[in-house]
Amino acid sequence: MPKVQAAILGATGMVGQRFIQLLRGHPWFEVTTLVGSERSAGRTYGEACRWVIDSEFPEELRHAPVQGIDTPIDAPLVFSALPSQVAGPVEERLAAEGHIVCSNASSHRMAPDVPILIPEVNPDHLALLEVQRDRRGWDGAIVTNPNCTSTPITMAFRPLLDAFGISKAIAVSMQSLSGAGYPGVASYDATDNVIPFIGGEEPKVETEPLKMLGTLRDGQIVPASFVISAHCNRVPVLEGHTICLSVALERPASTEEVIASLRGFQALPQKLNLPTAPLQPLIVRDEPDRPQPRRDRGIGWDMPTVVGRVRPCPIFDYRLVVMAHNTIRGAAGGSILNAELMLQQGYISYTSDE
Amino acid sequence: MPKVQAAILGATGMVGQRFIQLLRGHPWFEVTTLVGSERSAGRTYGEACRWVIDSEFPEELRHAPVQGIDTPIDAPLVFSALPSQVAGPVEERLAAEGHIVCSNASSHRMAPDVPILIPEVNPDHLALLEVQRDRRGWDGAIVTNPNCTSTPITMAFRPLLDAFGISKAIAVSMQSLSGAGYPGVASYDATDNVIPFIGGEEPKVETEPLKMLGTLRDGQIVPASFVISAHCNRVPVLEGHTICLSVALERPASTEEVIASLRGFQALPQKLNLPTAPLQPLIVRDEPDRPQPRRDRGIGWDMPTVVGRVRPCPIFDYRLVVMAHNTIRGAAGGSILNAELMLQQGYISYTSDE
Amino acid sequence: MPKVQAAILGATGMVGQRFIQLLRGHPWFEVTTLVGSERSAGRTYGEACRWVIDSEFPEELRHAPVQGIDTPIDAPLVFSALPSQVAGPVEERLAAEGHIVCSNASSHRMAPDVPILIPEVNPDHLALLEVQRDRRGWDGAIVTNPNCTSTPITMAFRPLLDAFGISKAIAVSMQSLSGAGYPGVASYDATDNVIPFIGGEEPKVETEPLKMLGTLRDGQIVPASFVISAHCNRVPVLEGHTICLSVALERPASTEEVIASLRGFQALPQKLNLPTAPLQPLIVRDEPDRPQPRRDRGIGWDMPTVVGRVRPCPIFDYRLVVMAHNTIRGAAGGSILNAELMLQQGYISYTSDE
Amino acid sequence: MPKVQAAILGATGMVGQRFIQLLRGHPWFEVTTLVGSERSAGRTYGEACRWVIDSEFPEELRHAPVQGIDTPIDAPLVFSALPSQVAGPVEERLAAEGHIVCSNASSHRMAPDVPILIPEVNPDHLALLEVQRDRRGWDGAIVTNPNCTSTPITMAFRPLLDAFGISKAIAVSMQSLSGAGYPGVASYDATDNVIPFIGGEEPKVETEPLKMLGTLRDGQIVPASFVISAHCNRVPVLEGHTICLSVALERPASTEEVIASLRGFQALPQKLNLPTAPLQPLIVRDEPDRPQPRRDRGIGWDMPTVVGRVRPCPIFDYRLVVMAHNTIRGAAGGSILNAELMLQQGYISYTSDE
Repeated sequence: MPKVQAAILGATGMVGQRFIQLLRGHPWFEVTTLVGSERSAGRTYGEACRWVIDSEFPEELRHAPVQGIDTPIDAPLVFSALPSQVAGPVEERLAAEGHIVCSNASSHRMAPDVPILIPEVNPDHLALLEVQRDRRGWDGAIVTNPNCTSTPITMAFRPLLDAFGISKAIAVSMQSLSGAGYPGVASYDATDNVIPFIGGEEPKVETEPLKMLGTLRDGQIVPASFVISAHCNRVPVLEGHTICLSVALERPASTEEVIASLRGFQALPQKLNLPTAPLQPLIVRDEPDRPQPRRDRGIGWDMPTVVGRVRPCPIFDYRLVVMAHNTIRGAAGGSILNAELMLQQGYISYTSDE
Repeated sequence: MPKVQAAILGATGMVGQRFIQLLRGHPWFEVTTLVGSERSAGRTYGEACRWVIDSEFPEELRHAPVQGIDTPIDAPLVFSALPSQVAGPVEERLAAEGHIVCSNASSHRMAPDVPILIPEVNPDHLALLEVQRDRRGWDGAIVTNPNCTSTPITMAFRPLLDAFGISKAIAVSMQSLSGAGYPGVASYDATDNVIPFIGGEEPKVETEPLKMLGTLRDGQIVPASFVISAHCNRVPVLEGHTICLSVALERPASTEEVIASLRGFQALPQKLNLPTAPLQPLIVRDEPDRPQPRRDRGIGWDMPTVVGRVRPCPIFDYRLVVMAHNTIRGAAGGSILNAELMLQQGYISYTSDE
Repeated sequence: MPKVQAAILGATGMVGQRFIQLLRGHPWFEVTTLVGSERSAGRTYGEACRWVIDSEFPEELRHAPVQGIDTPIDAPLVFSALPSQVAGPVEERLAAEGHIVCSNASSHRMAPDVPILIPEVNPDHLALLEVQRDRRGWDGAIVTNPNCTSTPITMAFRPLLDAFGISKAIAVSMQSLSGAGYPGVASYDATDNVIPFIGGEEPKVETEPLKMLGTLRDGQIVPASFVISAHCNRVPVLEGHTICLSVALERPASTEEVIASLRGFQALPQKLNLPTAPLQPLIVRDEPDRPQPRRDRGIGWDMPTVVGRVRPCPIFDYRLVVMAHNTIRGAAGGSILNAELMLQQGYISYTSDE
Repeated sequence: MPKVQAAILGATGMVGQRFIQLLRGHPWFEVTTLVGSERSAGRTYGEACRWVIDSEFPEELRHAPVQGIDTPIDAPLVFSALPSQVAGPVEERLAAEGHIVCSNASSHRMAPDVPILIPEVNPDHLALLEVQRDRRGWDGAIVTNPNCTSTPITMAFRPLLDAFGISKAIAVSMQSLSGAGYPGVASYDATDNVIPFIGGEEPKVETEPLKMLGTLRDGQIVPASFVISAHCNRVPVLEGHTICLSVALERPASTEEVIASLRGFQALPQKLNLPTAPLQPLIVRDEPDRPQPRRDRGIGWDMPTVVGRVRPCPIFDYRLVVMAHNTIRGAAGGSILNAELMLQQGYISYTSDE
């Protein structure tokens, strides 16, 4: 089977590198176009990219050209790891040109006609693309994946919401350094320290899950009707965002029922056997001191959300800890899983201009 | 003025070392007796102690003898840095022998006739000692300081409770490595990691503040009537516990009023000019990304609680971040401040056998 | 083909865990016996072992019994991860009982009739086992792998010694935390710090490489005749020992020749295709800032030695940096490779009592 | 006594902040002019500076103006924390205008008429200023302090060279993160890692000590005639560079004599009681595992060089470990000590234009 050609926008950055790492040997997609900033355009990937993630540099791309953002892209599929401050108009132009844009940027996440997609959570929101195409008059599409902290929260909320309802949730995150990209946080700030603030993060965590857990009705998403309050912290961890959740449910549930609903969570990507889907979307650990980001982020090829410490709360109903690999599940891997679902459901064709 | 002689129980451990560091040159107290475990007894302090804290080893104590727990203690004042599993009976025996025991151990904290004391928060609870002496039939006393995470939480709650009432609070801590003592957390566990669990910690954080914020009435403490839910995490920080708080108030308050009540907090130790009292018990920082443990733990000789990010909460009324140096304000320094208040209020005499 | 049954001594420790991790699915060996300390004996592996390494706990062993050190062992092959202070007599007894003991302990390394083996470096030293058996009167054997810092140094010295001779070398190590085992270094010592001393380490690094690079002649090893001076430091790194080497050669060589000799190094395990042998024993990196332990320890399934910064020295002839994964190549993985060579060369039979 | 007015070039950077921190309350100097980059010029210090060091922000300077590099400077004394790529011409212009420039930049260090000064090491090199003024035709002066790694090495070499002669030395550094300034090293590079390379560092460490330890003769410095070979590494430490030294002496010496020469080192700044001079320039520790950067960098107000592990070497004569606080002793503090010596010796007057 021929593979779908894919371009990576922001190919030299940390999330761009993750896209390249994860797409090596991908059964459905192949990277054929690398797009970088003006500074990188015209150079080879080997020259333009300071490879910082812990896997090996992809030798097959060392001499591949990096093209500028204004050069036409042949590939029908575009993965965007652009910084959010520039992603907006670029992604719109590409969608207008007919590309399927799977974006990790936050620019369009809250647009009413753009889905924020987690295939395990809201695959039906892909139907919003019809509205998007109608309204925008384009053949392409923009689909976003959520913020890296919103991802594991929403993954854990899906079965809880379905089984018991949720009325309120307080989320306190301990986010890894890679969440800030590269060079990101200065080592002089991060060592022996916690930074109790991440610019722009809390509003995302308070809104994105509600949109994803909302209902698509009459061409628009009615967000889930509960409230989230977020505190976001940066801690000296390389990869893996850990979040302490306090959750008020709408219907009574025993601890066993709560754990069973998390552990039993089954979702579409697993049923469809999408290549990047983890065997189990949620892994519930029984040890009292898990999940730990360093020890649990690598489980299941970095794609599950790991849950632990599910226990009653004297104020809300339950407390738990969730954790996921932020630059894989929470960024590039999540976006690739979105594209896999879209291909499987017929949203992506093999050329961009058919 | 002659100084009050003091013994340190658990003198070779990390909190014991902090006691010794902070009592060097203390205007009121002098360390005359060092008590260690069986392994240390009979050796000099220089031989028995692996000095690990970042100040210099106290040369004047290098040849001082370390005595066993069963050897009689001359000093009227005893600071206990004993592990909680052994502190109970030892501290009771010493109080029965007439000593004033200022204990950092958790063993007696929740006993109905033992105060958990923060001089800025509940100096009036010292009156409970009368009940303690009556009931226990001893001339000595046991006074405890709270858990190192309870300390900054309670410091911040005092003015909020007084001004606005508190009905509920969720506390999520990011606690430093030194909170586990020495050797404490293995570096192989701590590096590039978060451990979302600290054994026995959450129940302390959920009960100790309520006792301290309670009312002494008819010889017993009626705890404050709100509810705390705690999540306790270990992060790779050397000193300084950071806590994200979500607080529901009983009466409406503007953000400005909340900040003003914290910033304006005045308390007895400051009025009395106790030697170890910080100039300001609560320091409210305006920067969006503070307090940070590494940068803020040293303010005011490590004794204030530093507060930041006071802002409304979409679920409870307010959110804020509090931080204090855990082995100083949250342990040895807190205990010394307790002894200072007790001396000033006539609870300590210069000999133990009057 | 039936697999050779293997026992792990010290199965619950960090190196023991690495043995278990690396032997899962091994084509030639299978773990059938777990041996632990008195405290562990009689419990299941799941009960006795606090699994700390970053791979998943081996579920198939959760209910496997851990036996004490005095219980007879059926397996012909024994991997020893015992602490060196207890390994000596135990390993001798097992060899006397006919077992092949592949030991990571230092106890017998410098015994004249015990080889320290790196299959890429001195496979011919296995012939010393004949002397060992003769002298000791046993059918079994003890073979050791070197100290985790000696390993990458010796790997890099092999081709240099062969091509150019070595007359002197100064080695300054920056060793990872896992080298101290678990719990090992306290996080309070390791964070934001370097510890410029590792007990007992420098003498090992100064002698083991010379023995391995020596010549087996008339039943004894004549050590290589150069001198090594070592400084050993502990740094806050999880895995991977990095060593700065200054090397005086006996014969002139250009930088290109030195690099070519390292890069072209070919050795027996690679020719034999031993299952755990890396494709390339030495990987020479051209980037100016490599090897880095975090980024390079995982190359080639953790088994190569990674070399970089080969450059002239104004005092000795050349300087270079070497790095290897200390608990895999420098411990369990090295020991397994030794066993593979021994099986391939007929030193191991399928039962211990033939 | 009126204080000498001082300007800080590069006032908003990490070393600039250290200058400001150390000059608060200085008995001889007062900061009256803050000079920043174009981006900072015209703003207040509070606006322009992201204060990152661990002391408190200097409130008295919050509203002080930051001026651009081209604005005339009134203060006679100028401390330069400029990046080396811009320092050269700016410092020359200021010297030509009559300023005494104490520079932390490397630009002029190796100029034949510019001293690299450590007051304990080569106070007589100040006489080179006469040559400098003659040749350059200016009334001002440029005096540099050495690279932060050269500093502790040279401090330890001074007494060894004087007592025993030095013929060769190999220096392997483990340098802290702050040595790279702010933001400096990315936390994603630094965590759980060693970077075995620091651009441009090794040539400095191989030449600066020789110049400082050289002899001023006939108006030029004849460098010390031994050879240094350096390996420079970055490790995850906040402050404090640790260096392992192997030193060949010219005359035989016992370990006791070597230690005695280091411990007994007396120097001019101590005799003159310069305000920033440490009581002891070299502190020799007897513990086997010291100096450690985190535990020893703060000794003596961060100004001594701490030495440990003095022991014979099987190749060269002795091995030892040296450590100093790199942004204080190795940068701002060293530069201030230089200015103190210059004032005491009549090189600085109270106005720049007399």
